[in-house]
Amino acid sequence: MTELEEAYRRAAAFLRENDGFLLLTHVHPDGDALGSVLGMASILQKMGKRVVIAHEEEMPERFAYLPGIDRVVRVSELTGRFAVGISLDCADRRRLGRAAEALMPEARLLNIDHHATNDRFGAENLVDSGASATCQIVCRLAGLLEIPLRGDTAVCLYTGLFTDTGGFRYGNTTADVLRLAAEMIDGGLDPYPIALQAVETVTEKQLRLLSAALAGLRTAAEGRAAYITVTRNLLEETGTTVEDTQELVNYARNLAGVEVGLMFREEGENEVKVSLRSKHRVDVSGIAAQFGGGGHPRAAGCTVEGPLRQVIDRVMGVVAARIGRG
Amino acid sequence: MTELEEAYRRAAAFLRENDGFLLLTHVHPDGDALGSVLGMASILQKMGKRVVIAHEEEMPERFAYLPGIDRVVRVSELTGRFAVGISLDCADRRRLGRAAEALMPEARLLNIDHHATNDRFGAENLVDSGASATCQIVCRLAGLLEIPLRGDTAVCLYTGLFTDTGGFRYGNTTADVLRLAAEMIDGGLDPYPIALQAVETVTEKQLRLLSAALAGLRTAAEGRAAYITVTRNLLEETGTTVEDTQELVNYARNLAGVEVGLMFREEGENEVKVSLRSKHRVDVSGIAAQFGGGGHPRAAGCTVEGPLRQVIDRVMGVVAARIGRG
Repeated sequence: MTELEEAYRRAAAFLRENDGFLLLTHVHPDGDALGSVLGMASILQKMGKRVVIAHEEEMPERFAYLPGIDRVVRVSELTGRFAVGISLDCADRRRLGRAAEALMPEARLLNIDHHATNDRFGAENLVDSGASATCQIVCRLAGLLEIPLRGDTAVCLYTGLFTDTGGFRYGNTTADVLRLAAEMIDGGLDPYPIALQAVETVTEKQLRLLSAALAGLRTAAEGRAAYITVTRNLLEETGTTVEDTQELVNYARNLAGVEVGLMFREEGENEVKVSLRSKHRVDVSGIAAQFGGGGHPRAAGCTVEGPLRQVIDRVMGVVAARIGRG
Repeated sequence: MTELEEAYRRAAAFLRENDGFLLLTHVHPDGDALGSVLGMASILQKMGKRVVIAHEEEMPERFAYLPGIDRVVRVSELTGRFAVGISLDCADRRRLGRAAEALMPEARLLNIDHHATNDRFGAENLVDSGASATCQIVCRLAGLLEIPLRGDTAVCLYTGLFTDTGGFRYGNTTADVLRLAAEMIDGGLDPYPIALQAVETVTEKQLRLLSAALAGLRTAAEGRAAYITVTRNLLEETGTTVEDTQELVNYARNLAGVEVGLMFREEGENEVKVSLRSKHRVDVSGIAAQFGGGGHPRAAGCTVEGPLRQVIDRVMGVVAARIGRG
């Protein structure tokens, strides 16, 4: 048995042998965070276990369709503390936010995550960085516990598989991910409503922001780079927040002929957040690193001091040189 | 053996027993049309067969990545006619366009398609309306012919599976489709470049059109319907064509709280093309039928006579009444 197989076996034993679980995930939860925490809750309930899910924030409207999301308790409303906890999709304890305060100091914590950077803060740690999503790890645990991937369990776990692979598009769309999704569809899951709600739904404000941001799209480096600019004014005019800007950079990257797409977002008087995406060839984490940032080869970011126009010129100069070098 | 299994068996025999094939698909080819015709060509070549692919149009830039697309011959440049043909993803002979003229009058034609409306115009007909894509039928034939779903064959066939299921999102994303995709990924296929090129790439003109169209987005029926308007002027100003408007209606449908999204496109002085999409509940084919059109419950269309403003008012009146009835 490999070390990882042993970690799966120990995690399954932890779930079988304990009861009265507090389930936690990271702040600003995404589809994999909520899918894994609610999927795990659904599995434990099928095992006859008592479960409480706590979070410090309100749940995002986008994921209102997830079965059980109405049972997530604001940590401020919890009385009493828990002796057994499970953290899902969270790389370090700090990212659990204030919800971690609902654990007793001596609580036994099972830490389930797929981030390679996970610092193994649990008493038990199931960290599988080969998994594309924490939901994929929970699927495998469900198999060990002989809980079928059906009904509510499937809706939650499919959501994490789908969102953390960019809707079955990114390079981490592995054969195993697609086979798990196939198993859930065999079990009666309807994929379309999940895709619509988890990924495609936009607010009217977001569409106004998109419309205005696209009107200001500019290309550079002979059409091989493109960027979108978001001023503080624009956010104010459209009534949007920083969270609403997340998808914009992809429009710049998706432009035909473009290799590097960027978004420049005014953070303050003299500070600009830069998001970089590339298609095939350019390692944008290297560009971000030049400005004190970082990330992955195809997705990176940095925060640069200076007025907006000046930051654009500086960063685009580096991007153009990088593209030119081929 | 069912009738369908028998059709598969006969099609496989047709491919084994013949040589010197002319491969054809429908005019205005999409990802499944080109994926299935090039995937089939790749399979036949692995079997040592001679293949020519003919089409009346230039190949769309979006699919330039498909292996073998540079070998598609303009039918106007073909000399000689073929005695054996294969039509892929085409519901009737007329939709093959002028490329069908490269067949001898007495040519034996194998008709492979997944459209339920296929009129069985071939000498042999493999029409599997249970398949989500013609590429899925070709995958199954590859299995019967013992040709692995690898390399160029996989890139072509994955493209059709991906595009005809709306990027593994629509209700026709079956377990079988995902398992075939998983098999290709096991064989070394990289899903991300295909998703980027087949679905996500947009032209700068299309982004200008999107920006302007979104600026004119309107909601109705207390936010449960939304529509986008495309005037002839707007197409002229942005240098776009009717093909560039295809995705716009989805932005209206994807709006949070909206059940029915529509696009109104001026066709002529006194004619408006209406596209309708719904999320969950409203059967938009019924609405389209009231105006002489048709389609599916979640996607339908019609062409309505009258000036733009008047058509919008008439159709939105029906939409609002339909939504109100629940």
